[in-house]
Formats: sequence, C-alpha cells, structure tokens
Amino acid sequence: MSNIRDVARLAGVSVATVSRALSNPEKVSPESLEKVHTAIAEVGYRPNMLARNFRSARAYAVVVLVPDIANPFYSLFIRALEDRAHQKGYAVLLGDTRGTPERELEYIRRVETRLADGIVQLRPSSEKSQNNIPPDVPCVNACGCEYTTGPAIRIDNRAAARSMVEYLISLGHRRIGVISGLKDNPHAIDRLEGYKEALASAGIAFEKDLIAEGDFTMWSGLNAAFQFCNMKNRPTAIFSMNDEMAIGAMQTLKNQGIRIPEDMSVTGFDDIAYAKYSDPSLTTISQPAEEMGKMAMDMLLKVIEGEPLSQRECVLPTEFIIRKSTGPVPKH
Amino acid sequence: MSNIRDVARLAGVSVATVSRALSNPEKVSPESLEKVHTAIAEVGYRPNMLARNFRSARAYAVVVLVPDIANPFYSLFIRALEDRAHQKGYAVLLGDTRGTPERELEYIRRVETRLADGIVQLRPSSEKSQNNIPPDVPCVNACGCEYTTGPAIRIDNRAAARSMVEYLISLGHRRIGVISGLKDNPHAIDRLEGYKEALASAGIAFEKDLIAEGDFTMWSGLNAAFQFCNMKNRPTAIFSMNDEMAIGAMQTLKNQGIRIPEDMSVTGFDDIAYAKYSDPSLTTISQPAEEMGKMAMDMLLKVIEGEPLSQRECVLPTEFIIRKSTGPVPKH
Repeated sequence: MSNIRDVARLAGVSVATVSRALSNPEKVSPESLEKVHTAIAEVGYRPNMLARNFRSARAYAVVVLVPDIANPFYSLFIRALEDRAHQKGYAVLLGDTRGTPERELEYIRRVETRLADGIVQLRPSSEKSQNNIPPDVPCVNACGCEYTTGPAIRIDNRAAARSMVEYLISLGHRRIGVISGLKDNPHAIDRLEGYKEALASAGIAFEKDLIAEGDFTMWSGLNAAFQFCNMKNRPTAIFSMNDEMAIGAMQTLKNQGIRIPEDMSVTGFDDIAYAKYSDPSLTTISQPAEEMGKMAMDMLLKVIEGEPLSQRECVLPTEFIIRKSTGPVPKH
Repeated sequence: MSNIRDVARLAGVSVATVSRALSNPEKVSPESLEKVHTAIAEVGYRPNMLARNFRSARAYAVVVLVPDIANPFYSLFIRALEDRAHQKGYAVLLGDTRGTPERELEYIRRVETRLADGIVQLRPSSEKSQNNIPPDVPCVNACGCEYTTGPAIRIDNRAAARSMVEYLISLGHRRIGVISGLKDNPHAIDRLEGYKEALASAGIAFEKDLIAEGDFTMWSGLNAAFQFCNMKNRPTAIFSMNDEMAIGAMQTLKNQGIRIPEDMSVTGFDDIAYAKYSDPSLTTISQPAEEMGKMAMDMLLKVIEGEPLSQRECVLPTEFIIRKSTGPVPKH
C-alpha cells in the first residue's frame, strides 16, 4: 500500500504540503493542490481520515434526529439532506429517535463527544416544547413551528391549515371533522389554530366533538374515522393533519359505505407519494421536503463554521393540491 | 469543563486507567470500570471520542448503501439496522446512492479511509452483478440473490415468486402478466425465474408479451399496466414484482374501468405499509425487513471483528399474505 511519502515524491512537494492539502486545503496553492490530488489518484493513496478528523477536531458528520424514518415525508427530506451533505464532504448519521428523549440525548452526546459536528432536528418543536439540545451544540430545527428557538426551517402550518379548511368551507361544508396529531404535538397545535381561524372567520362555532386524536400513522387515522361514522350528525368533510391518517380514514369510510367525496370529503397534509395513488386521489398541502432538506444542511454548515446567518428562520411556501377526495357538500 | 484528570482523581485510579476504560474496556477490571463510569457521570466529563477513534483505528460507524431511502421497504430495514447499531455503540452513516456506481464508490472510500468500519449493501446483487466492493472492505449484502458473493442476508426470491404465481394458477388464471423490475436487476431476474417455473409446472407456455418492464416505482407500474389494458387477449392477473408498481398499476386499471379482482387480479411483493390500505387491499409477499436489518448489523459486526461466521449466507422466510386484490379467473 502506498503512503504519504510516495504521494509527496510523485507530486514533487514536501510531505508537509501533502498533509496540509488534506487537512487545510485552503492553505495550499491551487497548483500544489492539483499536483497532490493527481499524485494521490496515481499512487492509489488512501489517507487515514480519522487522523485528519482528530487533528482538525472535526468529524465531518452531522446527525439527523428523526422521530420515524419510515414516515415518507421524513425520508424524502433526509434524501435531500444527505445529497447536500455529500456535496459538502459531510456524512449524515442517522438518529432514529422513535420519539423518545433518551435516544435523542444519546445522539446529542455524539456531538458533545466530537463524533459529529451538529444536528438537524426533525422533531417538531415550538417555544413551549422541550428542546433537549444544549446551546453550545450547533443545531437547526427543520420542522419548526412559530416561535421555535434557534435557527429553523419551517412552513407556516397555521396558514396552510387555514387555507385548506377555508377551501372546504367554500365547497359548502360547515361541519368539518379534524383528525389531529397527538394533542401536545406542536404541528398539531399550529394546524388546529388554523382550523379554528377558518371556522371563526366564516362564523362557524367550534365543536370539540369534531376533533379526533391520532398520532400521524395510518392505523390511527383508520381508528379516528370511526368517531365520525358513528355520529348522529356526522361531519361532511374531514381535515386530516397528515396524508397517512387520511389514507387510513378513507379505508374506514369506504368500509362503512360512505362514498368519498359524494358523502364525505377528505383532505390530507404533506403530499407524500401515495397521496396521488390513493382512491380517490387525495386533496392535500404539499410541503417542499427536498428544498427543506437542502436548506437545513446549508444552514447547519453555517452554524458549525460560526458564520452569521442572514435569517434565523426560513419559512418556505406550501402548495395547495386539489385532487378527487374533495367535493361539494352533499345535499339532503 | 472537567477533564480526564478530574475523573481519575474522583475514581481513585490513574489517568492511564481512565483512558484504557474508554478505549479498551476489556483490559480494565469490572470494579475499576464501574468506578470510572460513576466518576465520569459525576464530573460530567465528555471524552473526545475522535481521539479514541484515532487511537483504536476504529470509526464505530457503518455505512448503509441504499439505492433509494424513500422506498418504504428500505426505510423499515434501515430503522431496524440503526436500532441494532445503536445498541452496539455504532453509528449508521446514510449512503443514498441513487443507484449510481460513482456515489457507491465514494461511500466505499469512506471505509478505506477509516471514516467507517464496514458496509451494509442494499443494492441487490448476484454472482454476475458488479460488486464494486474491494475484498478487504468488511461488507454484508442484505438484499442478496442466489449465489451472492460474500456474507449475505436474503430471501428466496425465486421460491416466493413461484408460490405467488402458483396461487394465481390455482385460482384458474392462465394468462398472467408480469410487471418486472429493470431487466438486469438481480431480484427481477430471480423472481422471473420463479414465474417461469410456476408456468412450466402447470404446462402453461411462457409468452414474452406478458412481461412489462418497470423500475420498482409507482409511476413505472402505472405506465406498465397500459401494455396489458390495450392487449387484444389481455391477462386476467398481474404479478407485480413489488407493491409500489402494483399500486401504480391498480390506478391504471381502475381508470380504464377494469375491476379488481373481478376482471383482473393484482399481486405485489414486499408488504409495505400501504399494501394493506390500497383499494382493494393488496395480496402480496411479506419480507421480514426488520429481522433482516437486525441480522445484517450482527453479521457485519462479526466481519469487522474478524470473528468466524457460522453461516456465510442467511436465507430468511417470507410470508404469503392474501388480501382482496386477487380472485378467481373471470368467466366469459
């Protein structure tokens, strides 16, 4: 196996220059840098990058904390994040926390012990929610809510939910059921605010019975929908806080002989790949998952490098996608 | 911030013992180890693990090479892999290769330059397919086929496909269309073998026109299905080589007014979460994704440690799941 001396000899530079070219390329002239890299390729040299990392006290890795990687919104986000990290010479360490604070702390510890340089947090958080991340750990929250502390990428959950409910109201619906995430989930809180705002501005009274709690899984949507089927005065539309719960809910409605959208309209949130293929296809809000992943990585690198951020918070636009799961309120 | 000397003082041991406890705990007595860890917790010491990694020439990280993390089969697998890695003190580096050999090589380079200790490969491979991974890089292939080189976890793709097609034949179907993966994909090759075996043993001639090529995405399944709709003598059943293509195909059939399963049966492969929620719910083959992820990590750790493997190859059982997308051949 070739070593650093072989590279230096072939490149016609000193061993120290080769070493600098690997650890601090910005301190080496472009000509020498090119000579070194040509020589590395030619002799097939494989530098020990653990040594570089140790010397530079940099792991060239970031942790992505994700409540559940099997959720397709998160996997799209992570794919884009990884792509960007890769371009920048960083690795992405997967931190699937299963929503537990213990797992989260263990991953945060990786940054504190220098095995990673920073964190992208995908657990929704808000001003009030538990943060867990010490202030000296570089972190970007990429599922932020209003008033998220620290650097954040987010959408306007409240406005997006409001526009969806206003659309249902414009179709004549006045009894609109909600399949919510867990009550203390910051996204669920913001989206419920948007729902309430839309009702209020149309002069419709809020009814607690029209809120069914889920946990963002298909199974929970399937169960939550029963609450509406069995109601005496059942809603004519369901606003589900994500697509997976909407897909689960549609199965319940169809099994109960309720036609979508003729008898009941259903809407989702996220626009996962399956939303277009559900039967009927799902009216939903599209989040720019890929753009969010890319921006989160760029923002985190700035925090790691100690560069100033032009904005502490980026609020990205959502898109309203009307498909076949929504229609006019049924006539009685 | 506290340092290693504080820990040694509190534990009543030497600095060298604390250092050994962190880098080579097996060389320290259980009593000293406990004292050291109690002291670490008490003084809030955060060892620089990059230094440990450098000294031990171990990154305590593995790379998972995945063609597409947005595929739900892979994300389930990775979730289980990460869980196991975490238990063993290893991090999982995400290597989303988008199916390109260049990206794959860059991630393999990470192991060669010591930034990771081994690789779990999720690209299907077989005896004939390009491997890319040098023999000195610890690797487990977790989407193996028959005759995969090196340590492998796999299912019996040929037998699983055969049993599915035999089931369709038992329902009276004799013209069975196939939505295949790309022709050179090792899984597609093995599953097509199983299809041919089932036909042969029922005395049904193989017809090339009944094979439509997809690429394992829903969109490709949607397009492939048109080939069958427009046939003069169209098939009465479709065997799709994964669930996503089956979900896409069902949308085409329904749009063309073809009822499932009354006019045409459809089957999938993998049993992703959406298979149960499709309309009609999908008859499919369940792969033990979580078990595979766990076993792949255990096997890779043995390879990294240089321990002998009791089996070079583990073939895990699949499960046959009959739902509502399949039925008897339509009567004419």
